[in-house]
Amino acid sequence: MRILILGGDGYLGWATAMHFSKRGHEVHAIDNYLRRRAHQEQGTDSLTPVLDSLPARAEAWKDVTGLDIGVTEDNICEYDVVARLFRELRPEAVIHYGEMPSAPYSHKSREHTVFTQYNNVVGTLNVLFAMAEHTPDAHLVKLGTMGEYGTPSIDIEEGFIEISHNGRKDTLPFPKLPGSWYHLSKVHDSHNIHFACRIWGLRATDLNQGVVYGIHTEETRLDERLLTRFDYDEVFGTALNRFCLQAVIGHPLTVYGQGGQTRGYLNIVDTLQCVELATMNPAEEGEFRVFNQFTEQFSILELAELVQKAGAEYGLQVEMEHVDNPRVEKEEHYYNAMHSKLLDLGLKPHLLSETLIESMFGEIEKHKDRVIPELIMPKTRWRGVRETQGALE
Amino acid sequence: MRILILGGDGYLGWATAMHFSKRGHEVHAIDNYLRRRAHQEQGTDSLTPVLDSLPARAEAWKDVTGLDIGVTEDNICEYDVVARLFRELRPEAVIHYGEMPSAPYSHKSREHTVFTQYNNVVGTLNVLFAMAEHTPDAHLVKLGTMGEYGTPSIDIEEGFIEISHNGRKDTLPFPKLPGSWYHLSKVHDSHNIHFACRIWGLRATDLNQGVVYGIHTEETRLDERLLTRFDYDEVFGTALNRFCLQAVIGHPLTVYGQGGQTRGYLNIVDTLQCVELATMNPAEEGEFRVFNQFTEQFSILELAELVQKAGAEYGLQVEMEHVDNPRVEKEEHYYNAMHSKLLDLGLKPHLLSETLIESMFGEIEKHKDRVIPELIMPKTRWRGVRETQGALE
Repeated sequence: MRILILGGDGYLGWATAMHFSKRGHEVHAIDNYLRRRAHQEQGTDSLTPVLDSLPARAEAWKDVTGLDIGVTEDNICEYDVVARLFRELRPEAVIHYGEMPSAPYSHKSREHTVFTQYNNVVGTLNVLFAMAEHTPDAHLVKLGTMGEYGTPSIDIEEGFIEISHNGRKDTLPFPKLPGSWYHLSKVHDSHNIHFACRIWGLRATDLNQGVVYGIHTEETRLDERLLTRFDYDEVFGTALNRFCLQAVIGHPLTVYGQGGQTRGYLNIVDTLQCVELATMNPAEEGEFRVFNQFTEQFSILELAELVQKAGAEYGLQVEMEHVDNPRVEKEEHYYNAMHSKLLDLGLKPHLLSETLIESMFGEIEKHKDRVIPELIMPKTRWRGVRETQGALE
Repeated sequence: MRILILGGDGYLGWATAMHFSKRGHEVHAIDNYLRRRAHQEQGTDSLTPVLDSLPARAEAWKDVTGLDIGVTEDNICEYDVVARLFRELRPEAVIHYGEMPSAPYSHKSREHTVFTQYNNVVGTLNVLFAMAEHTPDAHLVKLGTMGEYGTPSIDIEEGFIEISHNGRKDTLPFPKLPGSWYHLSKVHDSHNIHFACRIWGLRATDLNQGVVYGIHTEETRLDERLLTRFDYDEVFGTALNRFCLQAVIGHPLTVYGQGGQTRGYLNIVDTLQCVELATMNPAEEGEFRVFNQFTEQFSILELAELVQKAGAEYGLQVEMEHVDNPRVEKEEHYYNAMHSKLLDLGLKPHLLSETLIESMFGEIEKHKDRVIPELIMPKTRWRGVRETQGALE
């Protein structure tokens, strides 16, 4: 299958590119290195030493496997770039990771908020128009997030919910209560993509993904040069990955607030499985399909305790600290999200175990000298402008 | 009250500015003349001859009433403009009409789609940040649209709906199924504003307005120089206003498709009443409140028949034509939208009558020589890119 991967230089994008290439697909990856630049701006870097460009990564891949991954270093917010890619490559599947992916980043300042929504919404609009114009039968596999739903007091369905009201019924988009300017950009995308399917008959799958953890996939293990990135800083790092690194370097685990915040989680190898299942089983013409992509739910406190326990086994003394929550979110809440559609397609989950956590400790130790500990504590606050401007009475 | 009106040069914006000024409020209006430029681009113009700038309008207003309306000719997509306005004027209420308001315009091309979503989303984000920074206690009265809801098969509530699901209950945002790229931009705004209320404690009222008709308000009748604009072209004109004009110039009424499309409607004088009621009864701190702002529901066919009947009384021979629907929408559907919250605040509706339609005929006749008939038939098609690029199989 001809597969175009948007954001192919990222944590999941690069791993996905190798995964499909290894399975015989014709893969092309595009990235504008937004994440690399954002790291440079704040003086952070991936824990894992990753090669310094997509062409270098593709060359290493070729060297190790003999397989080709096509690459483009450019920006999908430029329509001529997107149109040319679709016209020349005629992808059958488009896997869209090509967005600014961080909630804290979107809260750094007004400029960051506007940039996040502009970048994500306009990039996705460009993709939709290019599909309508050049490859109307292609299938868009879009990475959304479970964070689009927020934490309602009812069970979270997969994208749509049947509502009975005043004696009538309809199946409608599940109401969204996203928790950051970044998550809002994903909600905007979902609405835009759904509409494009309705008016143009496009095919799309919105993967509302949970929080991903893990360092290795089958392909990253082949050669040190094929490593994917691993972020641990407050802006781009995610919960379990951060906790594992904190445990290794002896930093107290940063539990935001009470720690009752519950979310869906999955292993990076399951991300690859899910994206492959969605891609190999495309949506119908005109269908906008939503899958909740995670394998297990945990509260932050449960995760911290798991890491503590695995740390003890491993011989690490792990402390835990309840830090003042920089976000605005419920710290105790009901959470029960459906996630059966990918299981129905054949997903075999790799559930979180102490063994996995301990193997992450081992991998992190290898690169421990690269850690910049000052970048671990949260600095970006959701109330931001109201606090820093002294306007909050 | 110090009132800032965003989009104060528009059909409703200018009428609103005069309305509040007349009632003793301190009014300031800002507009970047987007609508005037869009008209110039497509060679159209308002039916009514309006003065050619906000300063000229404010001068005429001063001349007629002795009252001041402050004006700024600038763009709310520029943050320094918005921040300066909020810092210097410290508005207590912000009435936000300052957006690209046309569904067909947003479907003209990819560039128009991107512009519409950029302009509306970024302008509104700027307003939210300026409020948080400079006037956190001010009340945002945002003009949304009933079109955010689409046409679900259940009753449409005012912004939120209580959902019972698997034995639990929650009150959540009413699911949205907007019908154009423009309407999507308003959905994005609603989500962003709701979030700003949650994280910053801002006060906001989202007025999901129906289709507005009418030429005159109390203030526009005072002097010919105080007229507000009246659009009848396919891009900026709305259903009833267009039908009345078509009746007067002997153009068949342009019913799109079967004409069963049902929407909420209201008289421009009721828009002013509703906006005043919302402004004088502000939302609580942190509250995001949604009012459905219309007084009656009609199908397009019912409106056309009303105009035909009023035309017969008035002595006009009115034809009707079912034109190929340029939009993608249901032409027969259930529609029942709640609209009691503004009535509870004291709204006294001016319902549509043959008398009103006949008085509109009279007003339109006065300016009939200004009509450009070629601009009446719809040209902008929702499937656009798939049809014009020949990609639709």
